[in-house]
Amino acid sequence: MNFLEEKILQDGVIKEGNILKVDSFLNHQIDIDIMRQMAYEFKRRFRGTAINKILTIEASGIAIATLLGHLYDVPVVFAKKSQTANSTDDKYVAHAYSFTHKKMNNVFISKPYLHDTDKVLIVDDFLADGEACHALIDLVHQAGGEVAGIGIAVEKGQQKGGGELRAEGYHLESLAIVEEMDWQTQTIRFRKQPEQTLVNPNLHS
Amino acid sequence: MNFLEEKILQDGVIKEGNILKVDSFLNHQIDIDIMRQMAYEFKRRFRGTAINKILTIEASGIAIATLLGHLYDVPVVFAKKSQTANSTDDKYVAHAYSFTHKKMNNVFISKPYLHDTDKVLIVDDFLADGEACHALIDLVHQAGGEVAGIGIAVEKGQQKGGGELRAEGYHLESLAIVEEMDWQTQTIRFRKQPEQTLVNPNLHS
Repeated sequence: MNFLEEKILQDGVIKEGNILKVDSFLNHQIDIDIMRQMAYEFKRRFRGTAINKILTIEASGIAIATLLGHLYDVPVVFAKKSQTANSTDDKYVAHAYSFTHKKMNNVFISKPYLHDTDKVLIVDDFLADGEACHALIDLVHQAGGEVAGIGIAVEKGQQKGGGELRAEGYHLESLAIVEEMDWQTQTIRFRKQPEQTLVNPNLHS
Repeated sequence: MNFLEEKILQDGVIKEGNILKVDSFLNHQIDIDIMRQMAYEFKRRFRGTAINKILTIEASGIAIATLLGHLYDVPVVFAKKSQTANSTDDKYVAHAYSFTHKKMNNVFISKPYLHDTDKVLIVDDFLADGEACHALIDLVHQAGGEVAGIGIAVEKGQQKGGGELRAEGYHLESLAIVEEMDWQTQTIRFRKQPEQTLVNPNLHS
């Protein structure tokens, strides 16, 4: 069990209707030590991947995106959400359905902040059906950039987002994948993630 | 001229109607080096002040709040905005008019994340009429906590927020105070801020 799975078991609250509340450390109050560990763990998992921009969507993704930007020393961009369709002349616009708020959002980024030379690490706090994530991918592609990877704090393993993104060939790293949870017993089973086998490069020198 | 004033002159865009756009480094794309300097500068200006929580409001304040939480090693809380009045049983709720979106927002924090023992540093990217800031102060006081200070990136010096907060006795530090700006010439005049005189404590030892 990793640090995030342990924290979820300790401080997460399971609500009826397949809802996992992590308000106390991830998306209302921010446990800065957990955030730092997440940033370091993403950097470890994406080692060897060239990244020159961190991309997220407002609001909960901004904290982890900021600490990752700090570690990588690259700019952070957060996509904005709006229900209104303003002028799209100077914006890349995609669409995402929010299950939390039960409405369709426009997700947009001003054109000067995404480029065809960008190698983008997309990060977010939750991945469920992948609506927000696919919207962010769409924005990167509209600009001609490359999605270098996708880093998610908590993936809901029984919803379709993670499976689809992996099938589409993206390098997706979710720090905790909730396979099953039960609000009556407050129990969670996490998907076991394979350990990466690393070869010490010095052995070959 | 400090680093933020310099950055605003270099990359800010003045629009008709007293609008200063700092999207390229502060509230859409985040220049991580400017953010880090802001965090260090706030910590310097609030030296000697006991702080055990950083408070901001979604979304643009989250990046600077996160880096400050990282520096102070304390939890960060971001207040949420909503137009709907859900159950308020478990929330502190205040109200703030948004001039950007021309609507009244409920601003709320779940009760477990603010306490009567909290010494809160409130941070935000902009201060104009002080609506958001006064809502955050209200939330801290509802919980019985103390506002230890208020740190603002860009204060619009001709609007009433800064003057009111200082008159109310809050320790307000704004890294850049825009005194005048002109969109036709793209010129900005910043308020000159007094240098603090420091006494080396070792002289007395």
